[in-house]
Amino acid sequence: MAKVKKSPRPKAETPKGFRDYFGAEVTQRTEMLAKIAEVYHRYGFDALETSAVETVEALGKFLPDVDRPNEGVFAWEEDNDWLALRYDMTAPLARVAAQYRNELPMPYRRYAMGPVWRNEKPGPGRFRQFYQCDADTVGAASVAADAEICAMLSDTLEAVGIERGDYVVRANNRKVLNGVMEMAGLSGDNQEAERGIVLRAIDKLDRLGEGGVRALLGSGREDESGDFTKGAGLGDEQADIVMGFMSAKRDNGAATVARLRELVGSSNVGGDGVAELEMMAELLDKQGYQAGRIEIDPSVVRGLGYYTGPVYEAELTFEIKDEKGRPRSFGSVAGGGRYDDLVKRFTGQEVPATGVSIGVDRLLAALRMKGRITAQEVGPVVVTVMDRDRMADYQAMVADLRNAGIRSEVYLGNPKNFGNQMKYADKRNSPIAIIEGGDEKERGVIQIKDLILGAQIAQNATLEEWKDRPSQIEVPRGELVAQVRKMLDGQG
Amino acid sequence: MAKVKKSPRPKAETPKGFRDYFGAEVTQRTEMLAKIAEVYHRYGFDALETSAVETVEALGKFLPDVDRPNEGVFAWEEDNDWLALRYDMTAPLARVAAQYRNELPMPYRRYAMGPVWRNEKPGPGRFRQFYQCDADTVGAASVAADAEICAMLSDTLEAVGIERGDYVVRANNRKVLNGVMEMAGLSGDNQEAERGIVLRAIDKLDRLGEGGVRALLGSGREDESGDFTKGAGLGDEQADIVMGFMSAKRDNGAATVARLRELVGSSNVGGDGVAELEMMAELLDKQGYQAGRIEIDPSVVRGLGYYTGPVYEAELTFEIKDEKGRPRSFGSVAGGGRYDDLVKRFTGQEVPATGVSIGVDRLLAALRMKGRITAQEVGPVVVTVMDRDRMADYQAMVADLRNAGIRSEVYLGNPKNFGNQMKYADKRNSPIAIIEGGDEKERGVIQIKDLILGAQIAQNATLEEWKDRPSQIEVPRGELVAQVRKMLDGQG
Repeated sequence: MAKVKKSPRPKAETPKGFRDYFGAEVTQRTEMLAKIAEVYHRYGFDALETSAVETVEALGKFLPDVDRPNEGVFAWEEDNDWLALRYDMTAPLARVAAQYRNELPMPYRRYAMGPVWRNEKPGPGRFRQFYQCDADTVGAASVAADAEICAMLSDTLEAVGIERGDYVVRANNRKVLNGVMEMAGLSGDNQEAERGIVLRAIDKLDRLGEGGVRALLGSGREDESGDFTKGAGLGDEQADIVMGFMSAKRDNGAATVARLRELVGSSNVGGDGVAELEMMAELLDKQGYQAGRIEIDPSVVRGLGYYTGPVYEAELTFEIKDEKGRPRSFGSVAGGGRYDDLVKRFTGQEVPATGVSIGVDRLLAALRMKGRITAQEVGPVVVTVMDRDRMADYQAMVADLRNAGIRSEVYLGNPKNFGNQMKYADKRNSPIAIIEGGDEKERGVIQIKDLILGAQIAQNATLEEWKDRPSQIEVPRGELVAQVRKMLDGQG
Repeated sequence: MAKVKKSPRPKAETPKGFRDYFGAEVTQRTEMLAKIAEVYHRYGFDALETSAVETVEALGKFLPDVDRPNEGVFAWEEDNDWLALRYDMTAPLARVAAQYRNELPMPYRRYAMGPVWRNEKPGPGRFRQFYQCDADTVGAASVAADAEICAMLSDTLEAVGIERGDYVVRANNRKVLNGVMEMAGLSGDNQEAERGIVLRAIDKLDRLGEGGVRALLGSGREDESGDFTKGAGLGDEQADIVMGFMSAKRDNGAATVARLRELVGSSNVGGDGVAELEMMAELLDKQGYQAGRIEIDPSVVRGLGYYTGPVYEAELTFEIKDEKGRPRSFGSVAGGGRYDDLVKRFTGQEVPATGVSIGVDRLLAALRMKGRITAQEVGPVVVTVMDRDRMADYQAMVADLRNAGIRSEVYLGNPKNFGNQMKYADKRNSPIAIIEGGDEKERGVIQIKDLILGAQIAQNATLEEWKDRPSQIEVPRGELVAQVRKMLDGQG
């Protein structure tokens, strides 16, 4: 047997697919979550924080009688129970809505924000832990609940810094789609496969264009690599009905609704869907959410079997460049809809629910691309240590600065090499360094060094404008706080 | 083989030892974390958020070659790697400090807040997921780093609402304790067991009193149930030295330090410890952290083998009643100290580090006991639905209220039974209900119902003072926002 030599030291690494977040990455997300929570709360939603760990039984979707639950979650056996990390915020909501059904107010409006975990193959930008930020209304059958969530989504995007015009919330209704299927002769029990192909084809309109979708509706489509995708086998007339649905969007909600009413014709479910969309459009219009903020858009499908009525998603419409340098719109940052089987698995009762999930990390990425937030935050003012026996003097300086609300610290590494102290300040992105040597101490003064200006001068020493702005000033010790504040203000 | 009948429905329960947090429980913790983060940040600490999942190898303490890692963590096997949920914030910090050692500024000051998981037997008030809120300085050997953390801890407690006088941060130094052990003749390599007994005995001073601790230092102690705990076997003279150490606290830091210097006598390590304590006391004194905020207290021990120098803890000193109704002080809410083996396991290098961990849930409990925060938050203003065809009118009302920053919602359940709407508002702890029936609509008015006052009157209908305050007023629709705001202000 071969002898396996063990490494004496553990590897300092995150598990595959996980990552660490530093400084501004953390604080910017925290700030965004606070802004979102403020809007959700103002809309009457209550916070809920469930534990990260659930029983696999409560999470559902998994087979308790196999040796190991299905892939997709991180699960383990504990005291003869299978436990797992939550993979979304909806499954725990279902458990809570069932567990506390006698105590919770009904309708129950809750928001939840936090990490979820997916046991999926990681890829570039795809992590196994990421944040979700959900709001759901449980126990409200009225589409007023759906309209409200669309309005709230619009308000939320503006609250976190996405300007009006840079986003659109699109709403549709799965019943309309079902009506269109019916009119296209696809409502049979034996046509589920065809309906699936049609749904997936509609979802790909952005990417494949009209021609590609038509091919998928018909006999099928060969992609650039030569791979063939089987089509739904619709005749031209049937395909026309589906294509007509996808291009039914008109300049305003009323016109779109009118066009959809033509398309669903005699279908009852389709008629119901159109009526719901009309009601939502009216509610939103009266609250001031006109086109440009929230639009009825029949091309919104949102996944496959899950939703039962209204569906909605938020797209950021400004242009970015993709990995090949081609312009494209930023895309979806939030989505949701109505689903009626939330607690049925637990209680047997159907309880209507509707809700939205915001992808916080995508939103942060969008704000960074727009230059609204910068990746690096400003570091602390660094009080350097010129004489290690006078640590108390230096600590008293930062106490003064901190009491005035100014972020600051004494350099706490080995102070022997002053260059290392300045390198540290540079690495921290510090705006200012304070220096008080023995000579300054004797004269009752300190040196205040403008590190931002210093860096600019170092980069471009010839610029005239900096001639008059000294990058270092000497001031009385008593003016420390006032002068630091003045310099910080000057740095903008 | 017996046929096992399976329950057709999953149980709607959290796993054993886990719980859900609702409404104010969540928002109050979020607010507290924000206040703590603000202080940590002002002190120059940077945020760090590591993933909840680590490799067992990186977490350490576990045996990779047994079938299953040690108890204490939640762990599972994934792609031939053992993964686990973090059980504290220090182990991930060690991994990060090693992994990014070439990129991080040094000293590295970071704070981390979030849940940790312990696979321990749950009990009353003991959960398997709870929050920690840590700040550590890595790579600073100076006790100035320890003093700073004590100062920051004091500032943090005041920032979250613990008043000066209701807390004390106590600092001690493990080297002083080691010196005392030396003077008591307990420094031998073969006396580790005795030192352990002495440490544990000191830690129990609060609970057992001087007599109990003396028994444990000597031959041993029999508790009320008759169980016997073996003692350290010290003679009277040795025990006197240890007891002298524990009662060495004097009125001010300088006097305590002088007393400790006597006690450690000729011990080198003890002398070093006293010098460090003296330095910390001087630094803190110059920054304004006098007795009553931070004190040198030799009875602080903080656990067993882990710490190597300064140790500190924060205690809330106000009285509460224990489960038997006896008064006792609230106790410890935070603690920490210096440890020098942070990254050695990964890199072989010793890197000094010092840090504190705040128990956020304990702090929240303390604020609730003091009446500083209340368990239930104020609910939304509820706009009732008198006429379901006029949902758009009601939604327009909440849009007005929300745009004015007032938390509000339309009742979205079945509006048929008005009593249910009022019961809902009651369950939500709503301050105000808005009513607009057909008659009001015609006259352009709305009814604003003061639910707080209404509840008070219902409880005590005879009180004169309420005769003049109507619990319901009729106002023009145009005055909705102004009148709601006025009523909310009146409710305080």
